[in-house]
Amino acid sequence: MLEGATMSSRVGPPLFIAGCTVPSAPVSTARRDFPHHRAIPTRWNDNDIYGHVNNVEYYAFFDTVINAWLIEAGGLDIHGGDVIGLCAESHCAYAAALTFPEVVTAGLRVGHLGRSSVRYEIAIFREGDDAPAAEGWFVHVFVDRETRQAAGMPDALRASLERLVVTGA
Amino acid sequence: MLEGATMSSRVGPPLFIAGCTVPSAPVSTARRDFPHHRAIPTRWNDNDIYGHVNNVEYYAFFDTVINAWLIEAGGLDIHGGDVIGLCAESHCAYAAALTFPEVVTAGLRVGHLGRSSVRYEIAIFREGDDAPAAEGWFVHVFVDRETRQAAGMPDALRASLERLVVTGA
Amino acid sequence: MLEGATMSSRVGPPLFIAGCTVPSAPVSTARRDFPHHRAIPTRWNDNDIYGHVNNVEYYAFFDTVINAWLIEAGGLDIHGGDVIGLCAESHCAYAAALTFPEVVTAGLRVGHLGRSSVRYEIAIFREGDDAPAAEGWFVHVFVDRETRQAAGMPDALRASLERLVVTGA
Amino acid sequence: MLEGATMSSRVGPPLFIAGCTVPSAPVSTARRDFPHHRAIPTRWNDNDIYGHVNNVEYYAFFDTVINAWLIEAGGLDIHGGDVIGLCAESHCAYAAALTFPEVVTAGLRVGHLGRSSVRYEIAIFREGDDAPAAEGWFVHVFVDRETRQAAGMPDALRASLERLVVTGA
Repeated sequence: MLEGATMSSRVGPPLFIAGCTVPSAPVSTARRDFPHHRAIPTRWNDNDIYGHVNNVEYYAFFDTVINAWLIEAGGLDIHGGDVIGLCAESHCAYAAALTFPEVVTAGLRVGHLGRSSVRYEIAIFREGDDAPAAEGWFVHVFVDRETRQAAGMPDALRASLERLVVTGA
Repeated sequence: MLEGATMSSRVGPPLFIAGCTVPSAPVSTARRDFPHHRAIPTRWNDNDIYGHVNNVEYYAFFDTVINAWLIEAGGLDIHGGDVIGLCAESHCAYAAALTFPEVVTAGLRVGHLGRSSVRYEIAIFREGDDAPAAEGWFVHVFVDRETRQAAGMPDALRASLERLVVTGA
Repeated sequence: MLEGATMSSRVGPPLFIAGCTVPSAPVSTARRDFPHHRAIPTRWNDNDIYGHVNNVEYYAFFDTVINAWLIEAGGLDIHGGDVIGLCAESHCAYAAALTFPEVVTAGLRVGHLGRSSVRYEIAIFREGDDAPAAEGWFVHVFVDRETRQAAGMPDALRASLERLVVTGA
Repeated sequence: MLEGATMSSRVGPPLFIAGCTVPSAPVSTARRDFPHHRAIPTRWNDNDIYGHVNNVEYYAFFDTVINAWLIEAGGLDIHGGDVIGLCAESHCAYAAALTFPEVVTAGLRVGHLGRSSVRYEIAIFREGDDAPAAEGWFVHVFVDRETRQAAGMPDALRASLERLVVTGA
């Protein structure tokens, strides 16, 4: 994860995504841009040998804020429900380091809501910071638990996701 | 992770990256497109409640194939070296499910080699499959361990990365 | 992790530790028996294929409640301090299952405080339960960061541990 | 995990288990004492901030060598079988540190085989070492997947465990 001055390498034209004319992460995202927030306390073994939360764990934070919302607000039954969500694609851009034992906040919104898929946008905030330490996105495709074929979302689930759609996001 | 028919959702124009005129992952990648391979046995707790390797673990596979190469081929000293690699950005597109206790193979190549950064491309293959179960990329920025400012790569490290550059990748 | 009726297998004489005349975990432990508590929200990938928090993660909870205390109450500097704590031995007995996204509470006390080592006792409680879902212990040996030889604890660290000693525990 | 001189603290009478008249781990265990071995390559994020494999990951190694055996040798169907194994109790004593990217070996044997439970003994060996870096044990209780009541083991599963019973272990 990048810190301090290295953060500036993310300002300006995108370096790494050839053929892409938009920055991979908007520079102006703030806490208020996300309709749902969830506190995520870091754990001892999130830290890697370099003393900060390992890049992989950010995706565990994404999984956690997304699925907790689906379960608690959308009624997703992960144990026996007919429809489950599988990850099709995910992405994260890192701007600042996190360190155990701090408590971070994950912001969640929906960028695109399709018939059987949804594209979430997530940001991770350090306590007291309004600029994200990391920003990413995550695509869920909802499928039938047994056949693993794309399936429509249950109504309650869809309704919970509509609450997170941000116009112009 | 997507399976079966849902895999077809990744064929054709990219759906999710507005403004981007190239697919997020080439459709023709095969084992031979990667100059380095590393076997990665899955672990019991890679499986999540849906019975397959959790999407987060693929990034742990990326970290593992990359850093093992840097240490074993490039002489990176993760315990005391002056220069360390931090992750600036990562991405993964999932095409097929993995299941413990299978042994997967991670393919690694370098898509772009800069002065102090490198963009790796990684694919995860199931045993016997030539088409990847997942494809992703990962950007390392090399920094001074103490100041965390961007730093040039040690010669041995750079040489090891040059061996993985694929022309036209 | 055991649930329901299988929990009764932990009542009565200890089955599995030959030669041992004390139960591996007291049957009467409750929240009030622990001077320190920390909330630990579960994460999506704590769940394993059987739908509950994997047995391994309980040890991550132990590590987290212990080290957060050492850092926040005892001034342990995990990044640069001269003395660090290494795990010499750990143990856990499981009585009930946990499931994402519930928030559990870890109780922490000190069973034995030596010159350079400490034996913590930890219990994990489900929300609303006074009987632990799991009980365990964990031995830290404090060592010099460079030589890894046993070292005395810094005064502030020792003082923080003395606050957790329970007489008759 | 302990290293160097601190290892000697595990020789002689057990320090930490009051009331227990046997050592928590035999001091003479070697590779040949285990009828089954499995190579487990470490991963980048096994390392914690102190530069070595975190104590928690050893339990992930236990889970992996045990369940891989049950699946591959005993026919355990973790996706749909009627009987599953839940962890009732686990333990680990640490003698030496492990570091990514080394490949370790897990040795597995059965110390006690009951009607619906089994007590495994596991040791972790570093490459080239005959003395274990860690020793532990793990109790599985087999239960009905739906009711979670103790259940008899399927014949093939029991037969696979009988192959690991070590007389006098």
